[in-house]
Amino acid sequence: MDSLLLDAFWSELLGTATLILLGAGVVANVILPKNKGFGPDWLLINFGWGLAVFVAVYVAFKSGAHINPAVTVGLWTAGQPFFEGDAGTIDATFGNAMVYFAAQMIGAVIGAALAFLAYKKHFDEDADPALKLGVFSTGPEIRSYGWNLVTEIIATFVLVFWVLVNGPTPTQIGPLGVALVVVGIGASLGGPTGYAINPARDLGPRIAHALLPIRGKGSSDWSYAWVPVVGPLVGAVLAGLLGAAWA
Amino acid sequence: MDSLLLDAFWSELLGTATLILLGAGVVANVILPKNKGFGPDWLLINFGWGLAVFVAVYVAFKSGAHINPAVTVGLWTAGQPFFEGDAGTIDATFGNAMVYFAAQMIGAVIGAALAFLAYKKHFDEDADPALKLGVFSTGPEIRSYGWNLVTEIIATFVLVFWVLVNGPTPTQIGPLGVALVVVGIGASLGGPTGYAINPARDLGPRIAHALLPIRGKGSSDWSYAWVPVVGPLVGAVLAGLLGAAWA
Amino acid sequence: MDSLLLDAFWSELLGTATLILLGAGVVANVILPKNKGFGPDWLLINFGWGLAVFVAVYVAFKSGAHINPAVTVGLWTAGQPFFEGDAGTIDATFGNAMVYFAAQMIGAVIGAALAFLAYKKHFDEDADPALKLGVFSTGPEIRSYGWNLVTEIIATFVLVFWVLVNGPTPTQIGPLGVALVVVGIGASLGGPTGYAINPARDLGPRIAHALLPIRGKGSSDWSYAWVPVVGPLVGAVLAGLLGAAWA
Amino acid sequence: MDSLLLDAFWSELLGTATLILLGAGVVANVILPKNKGFGPDWLLINFGWGLAVFVAVYVAFKSGAHINPAVTVGLWTAGQPFFEGDAGTIDATFGNAMVYFAAQMIGAVIGAALAFLAYKKHFDEDADPALKLGVFSTGPEIRSYGWNLVTEIIATFVLVFWVLVNGPTPTQIGPLGVALVVVGIGASLGGPTGYAINPARDLGPRIAHALLPIRGKGSSDWSYAWVPVVGPLVGAVLAGLLGAAWA
Repeated sequence: MDSLLLDAFWSELLGTATLILLGAGVVANVILPKNKGFGPDWLLINFGWGLAVFVAVYVAFKSGAHINPAVTVGLWTAGQPFFEGDAGTIDATFGNAMVYFAAQMIGAVIGAALAFLAYKKHFDEDADPALKLGVFSTGPEIRSYGWNLVTEIIATFVLVFWVLVNGPTPTQIGPLGVALVVVGIGASLGGPTGYAINPARDLGPRIAHALLPIRGKGSSDWSYAWVPVVGPLVGAVLAGLLGAAWA
Repeated sequence: MDSLLLDAFWSELLGTATLILLGAGVVANVILPKNKGFGPDWLLINFGWGLAVFVAVYVAFKSGAHINPAVTVGLWTAGQPFFEGDAGTIDATFGNAMVYFAAQMIGAVIGAALAFLAYKKHFDEDADPALKLGVFSTGPEIRSYGWNLVTEIIATFVLVFWVLVNGPTPTQIGPLGVALVVVGIGASLGGPTGYAINPARDLGPRIAHALLPIRGKGSSDWSYAWVPVVGPLVGAVLAGLLGAAWA
Repeated sequence: MDSLLLDAFWSELLGTATLILLGAGVVANVILPKNKGFGPDWLLINFGWGLAVFVAVYVAFKSGAHINPAVTVGLWTAGQPFFEGDAGTIDATFGNAMVYFAAQMIGAVIGAALAFLAYKKHFDEDADPALKLGVFSTGPEIRSYGWNLVTEIIATFVLVFWVLVNGPTPTQIGPLGVALVVVGIGASLGGPTGYAINPARDLGPRIAHALLPIRGKGSSDWSYAWVPVVGPLVGAVLAGLLGAAWA
Repeated sequence: MDSLLLDAFWSELLGTATLILLGAGVVANVILPKNKGFGPDWLLINFGWGLAVFVAVYVAFKSGAHINPAVTVGLWTAGQPFFEGDAGTIDATFGNAMVYFAAQMIGAVIGAALAFLAYKKHFDEDADPALKLGVFSTGPEIRSYGWNLVTEIIATFVLVFWVLVNGPTPTQIGPLGVALVVVGIGASLGGPTGYAINPARDLGPRIAHALLPIRGKGSSDWSYAWVPVVGPLVGAVLAGLLGAAWA
């Protein structure tokens, strides 16, 4: 692996770890007992995840800050390189995509483990095992694989389409743009499934949930695990196709 | 239709569809049962709609991002072109306005249908038919056509006036500016009528409500439908006149 | 009056009217019955007022956007001109200050009247007269003229000091800066008195409250009216003195 | 002390005082009785603290706006100067660090005293002494020195690491960046301990709590006081080491 790609590997790993640490963290704060943020507040969760993206994009500055396989797939579908900078270009190839995916997945597992450590004493409290899983992975309010998939496809489409078409609009707010898009997607399309919109965001923490010694944990709900992987990937491909035509 | 106008047509259609998908979506999240965002939270709705505008303005970059007939009418009244870019200028003419209006209305219907799909299982739940309509269209808390009209006129005036006069103030936040204006109008003037401030935002989804196979749906409340069309248009003309004098 | 000063007069009038329309509006939405935003939500009020400032500063681009006598006094104390632009400079003189104050007060009364019209049907509902006054003017939670004055002095000091010292820090967010400062002051220092931090913001609407035909209105609480005038002016003078030394 | 360092002393003092005035203020507003913001709202607290940072960074423009010993330590560990400007450079030396720390601590005590004055009448009300302390200093929801330390280390790491690595990402939002990072850390990692992430933010107000004549005050909880000092310093050193390697 050349040094540009190696940097990208570490960049995606660090960025996705930051994303999941802060994203899982805000959910823990809201749904685990005895936290200062305990109690239903969807807007708090939306800002928490949006600002998790905000911080993570700055961290992942050596890879184009995908921190999401759906973004990688969207760029790939649209025929755009994964990264362009002074140091060089990382083209959209199968091999490079595998490096990005691996880094994102490893980072997501690490980020989930860090969130577990930050909230360790609250995981030790008695709570519904489904809530403890909810800190890690998404789950639908009404289980219906087909419609849950539709929701994830639409939500991810919005994210990746925005990433592909925001270029021509002049603005200097940097990573705040994508952070606000994620706040908005959560507010507007997160109701039914909890807006995974990122396969690594869901699968990585689910693996962490299965591995970590969480007191009183229940099932990792593997039967649902394919939905927040397939839905975002389908949405990303659709966005890549339409984005390439429109942008 | 020349290619510049055709691009503008698609731009307004895609932008308005994005606006309504995310705007109707946040309302569905808050008022339809079993959603993760369920429960009264006006600020969540305000941010949801504001960020819907944020995303949509980026999408609609080939038409000046009106995504609202009131903006089109305001520019027209103020004697400004609908769009100016490297590719050319779209003048404020009757024919061009019709193209913009058509795209906005079609986009709004499509966006509402997509929001319906994203929240399909929640529409299938038992709920007051008025709530199901509320996802699509606005309705007043106290029905009084005259005063509801006044509220919509004032709120739309603020939006269109800001669009016309923000130019001389240096800032680089791009679409975040108008997004925050919409958050603010919702917070401050949305209480009585739900701030349509956009004829297509209200009429398009109302048509979608009438057409879509929504389980247990009730009336589309056509008797109120003229208010969120006429109010915003009057407000836009007033803003266009004063904006032309002031800016 | 020369045309530069006349423009500034209209600018302060329009800007302050916009400020109070949106500021009084968000309070009406939260505290008057049957509104969509009804129910306690201090953060909603903070964002409503902050974004009221945001919109108003764009509107008032021909006068430096004081929209607050405390800002005018702060600049005056610090020895800075009221406005500098391509069209010329408006110096800090007694006469010019009177023009600014007059425009701010007239604008505030007009803005309050517009908010009354936007919420007319909700003012017609039965509600505690103190709540109806609360849409217009501030009032303390614990009445204590001395301590209420201290709170207003400190809060206004923060606002005016920021206005005077923000120059050396590079940023391109424009009016969003002062809007966020106002959100922050409301969140952090608004608890005891409702953060007038602007004599026109409190006195203008109080006059409007006394004049308007509000159903079931009570006292305009003139005994408190001096606190949100004197407190902000004292805070502004202190900020002007320290700001001139520091910036 | 040369004039550059003297300016930096005053800058850190004024900035940290502003930070604590607004930060302690928002907590007072939410947890002390009879305030307009009274009632649980973690997002309000997060925005209050984030915007406290926003205002304070503008105020502290002559010192690089550390307003936090953890930032000073992070820069020191990473081998970066404390301040670089047209007027000169303040190197990372032991003596300069002591000047920064002293200014931050003095400023924090002053800021806490100002917040006490702004909320004096609410401190006079009957309330749980732990709540009155909570306005000043952080405390854990589940006391466990080891795990509380872990949470503070992780949260501070995120803050300082962002400060060290945000440079390469182009954006023009200025102090809004770090303000949003603090909002996000509060939302995501503030649940267990209340996110001190700043030794001066916790220890300064705790000293103020011990000194001030607060009606019905209880213990200043000195047994916990080392956690929000040691945790942030450890997190800062770790961030400095990794930040120097990554940025």
